Amino acid sequence: MKQINIMIDNSTIAAISTPPGTGAIAVIRMSGINAISICNNIFHSSSHKDLTKQSGYTMHHGSLIDNGKTIDDVIVGLFRAPNSYTGEDVVEISCHGSVYVQQKILELLSGNGARPAQPGEFTMRAFLNGKLDLSQAEGVADLIASSGSAAHRVAINQIRGGISNEIRGLRDQLLNFISMIELELDFSEEDVEFADRGELKVLVSEIEQLLRKLIDSFSLGNAIKNGIPVAIAGKTNSGKSTLLNLLLKEDKAIVSDIGGTTRDFIEDIISVNGIHFRFIDTAGIRHTSDEIEKLGIERTYQKINQAEVILLLTDVTDTTGNITGSIKGIKEKISDTDKKLVVIANKSDLINNTQTRIIKDSISRCLDENDRLLFLSAKYGNNLDKLENILGELIHAEKLEENDVLITNARHYEALSRAHESILRVTGGLENQVPADLLAMDIREVLHYLGEITGEITTDEILGNIFKNFCIGK
Amino acid sequence: MKQINIMIDNSTIAAISTPPGTGAIAVIRMSGINAISICNNIFHSSSHKDLTKQSGYTMHHGSLIDNGKTIDDVIVGLFRAPNSYTGEDVVEISCHGSVYVQQKILELLSGNGARPAQPGEFTMRAFLNGKLDLSQAEGVADLIASSGSAAHRVAINQIRGGISNEIRGLRDQLLNFISMIELELDFSEEDVEFADRGELKVLVSEIEQLLRKLIDSFSLGNAIKNGIPVAIAGKTNSGKSTLLNLLLKEDKAIVSDIGGTTRDFIEDIISVNGIHFRFIDTAGIRHTSDEIEKLGIERTYQKINQAEVILLLTDVTDTTGNITGSIKGIKEKISDTDKKLVVIANKSDLINNTQTRIIKDSISRCLDENDRLLFLSAKYGNNLDKLENILGELIHAEKLEENDVLITNARHYEALSRAHESILRVTGGLENQVPADLLAMDIREVLHYLGEITGEITTDEILGNIFKNFCIGK
Repeated sequence: MKQINIMIDNSTIAAISTPPGTGAIAVIRMSGINAISICNNIFHSSSHKDLTKQSGYTMHHGSLIDNGKTIDDVIVGLFRAPNSYTGEDVVEISCHGSVYVQQKILELLSGNGARPAQPGEFTMRAFLNGKLDLSQAEGVADLIASSGSAAHRVAINQIRGGISNEIRGLRDQLLNFISMIELELDFSEEDVEFADRGELKVLVSEIEQLLRKLIDSFSLGNAIKNGIPVAIAGKTNSGKSTLLNLLLKEDKAIVSDIGGTTRDFIEDIISVNGIHFRFIDTAGIRHTSDEIEKLGIERTYQKINQAEVILLLTDVTDTTGNITGSIKGIKEKISDTDKKLVVIANKSDLINNTQTRIIKDSISRCLDENDRLLFLSAKYGNNLDKLENILGELIHAEKLEENDVLITNARHYEALSRAHESILRVTGGLENQVPADLLAMDIREVLHYLGEITGEITTDEILGNIFKNFCIGK
Repeated sequence: MKQINIMIDNSTIAAISTPPGTGAIAVIRMSGINAISICNNIFHSSSHKDLTKQSGYTMHHGSLIDNGKTIDDVIVGLFRAPNSYTGEDVVEISCHGSVYVQQKILELLSGNGARPAQPGEFTMRAFLNGKLDLSQAEGVADLIASSGSAAHRVAINQIRGGISNEIRGLRDQLLNFISMIELELDFSEEDVEFADRGELKVLVSEIEQLLRKLIDSFSLGNAIKNGIPVAIAGKTNSGKSTLLNLLLKEDKAIVSDIGGTTRDFIEDIISVNGIHFRFIDTAGIRHTSDEIEKLGIERTYQKINQAEVILLLTDVTDTTGNITGSIKGIKEKISDTDKKLVVIANKSDLINNTQTRIIKDSISRCLDENDRLLFLSAKYGNNLDKLENILGELIHAEKLEENDVLITNARHYEALSRAHESILRVTGGLENQVPADLLAMDIREVLHYLGEITGEITTDEILGNIFKNFCIGK
């Protein structure tokens, strides 16, 4: 069934697999038919151990030697095909974590016949050798990128075959279905129906619901994986940056833990119950001259339409402005009704209870059922916990069960959507009593799209797109 | 002989040992009496393997479980005391390189009885358990920090016992010496000389020379370890930044390879034949108003006195300035005659041969024998290779032999200097025929200082100072 055209390259590949930079130790990984013999060529131990004679899952202490010069004292770990990550012979060299030493060892391995690995090439080999299916391989990349407990949980579930099992279940039902249909085709001249059309309709309807459930999970899955985009909008001096700093300060440890690569392209992040919220910069609104202000507001509206949650800050002491006016303005500009609006009545510490009640009434009149209103003092941090609770509630993360299968991957979402379109054609076909051969075609299409997810059906292009986003060394 | 008062702490320690950040894999290391049982408590493999029953130098595939939830699929490597880095039971957990996963596993180990390791605590345990002497332990830190081939070579030599062997040789000779002297003390009433004073003088002189050789090597050793500080001086528009960019561009790859921590506190670096040159910023001279110019020049002189090499740029087309005047000015301000001055006659592409000859003659008249002069065009990169050769020659790095023992550590330098002072007192004592007990005291002092280097004599304070500079996880 596999339609893989990618050249299975027999070369031995090597890469630094630990994070870039200096540390106590680093690991250089090598995979391929010559991995162990290449390492053995440069390895010297006091007992003159021959690595090629050692078993898998063993470690060996010794030095790596380049032209008589010691490069480092290392521990070499051996894995024998097929009992390794890639399914090939694998060597893991644990060396001192100097960048210079890491580079030197990689050069030494290259000089002895290994070639530097492409991003994701170890995992691609694991896939090609049947150690992982494609959705599991994608789970590996998601796990490495995960920086919150929810994203981590979903990725681990994917690696451990969560999605693959769901897809396999669907495929098994469909294969059973199509075998009956195709039996009819063999006897087509006799005009028999082996497959009871009533039973088929029930089955197809079940499959359609399962597909829809998976497709619907993408909204939460994607939010969990990529973080929820949140825009903080509001006039200058309404306290946007105070609020943002406050939110970030509370979660400073988590934010700094995210580190490295992620920080390069994401904005400020806070984590509530393991879900990341990405704050989109709406600094554009800051300028004060009228012309620029207009431009700024335009830009803010653009940003707002990228966000899933909008925190609209209003200054309750601002007597010059029209609080309800700006809320209405924002609501008009929001194109997608799925967006969540939280109006934050800031500087609540500066007004009394009566004023609070009046403002609350007047704002509430502008809001729809799902919109939220919160009185808060960004300066003193009052009700910050309530804001965090609201953020958590809006995403319904509490509904996430331990073993729930969530679609987090746009490629899976795409394939499932197409499979769903095809299954709807099957439903229609059954209703309109189309010939069995047409039904069979649509079912084959569903099978095709499901096969794309697990990699039973794949192309070089799909593989290339998936693995190019991996880090080197994985 | 060991005088270690540090609490040997029986706790099991754990730390992330690979560089911080996201990578394909990361390694979390644990050492101590409970390391294997702690890991076993949270480890689950399909064959229900009991890690506590497995041998050292073996690896095991399984999952780490926290309250029924899978944290990650990992490879666990086991080392059994005393055959490990620390001399204790050691577990190395190789996990997916997500920062979140790394932190989560560290928390899981802490929750099960390990405590987060202090910087260098693994290596300190290795020292306390006799796996390394102190200078070897310091070599480990130097190796991890090494970013050039020369520093790497010196550090590897030190880890493999280079300095320890030299020191041990000296100690053996001294112990032989003192045993004879002390024999005399036992028979002091009989006024005999077991130790031939003539032979002793020869021996002490040999030891003194060996100590001096080691002490003298510190200048090169320190330069190799920390990089050679180079100041680029010269008037505004003489081409300082063009030259610097040119030098850096040539070595861009090496500079970016240094990465991480080092980059935080060092300035621009180039590497010539594996030796790093650190360029000290002399931007202060840039301002043009007279008052500020004066201040800037003062600051530049300060910077120049921090440098070991001074590149003085002069613009050969600058007819308004007095080239030889500024050279004389700089030379007057250089307090240390060991500093190396390279006058760079820049923009040499803009003058003809006659002009070159005239300028060369006039500059040469201001220079001393060891000063260097180079005509160069920073704009076009002419003679850049010559400048790099000069930098290399000035440091005499070519004299460095493969197995040369170099002192790179200020603590060793200090101890050797004190040992040298004491040995000079022994020389004087022998000449003045002081009593044997006074000789013995001075020799004991030499032994004491040598013992400090390898850690046979040490204090909590020394240990604390050494290991606090290690990275966590080593």
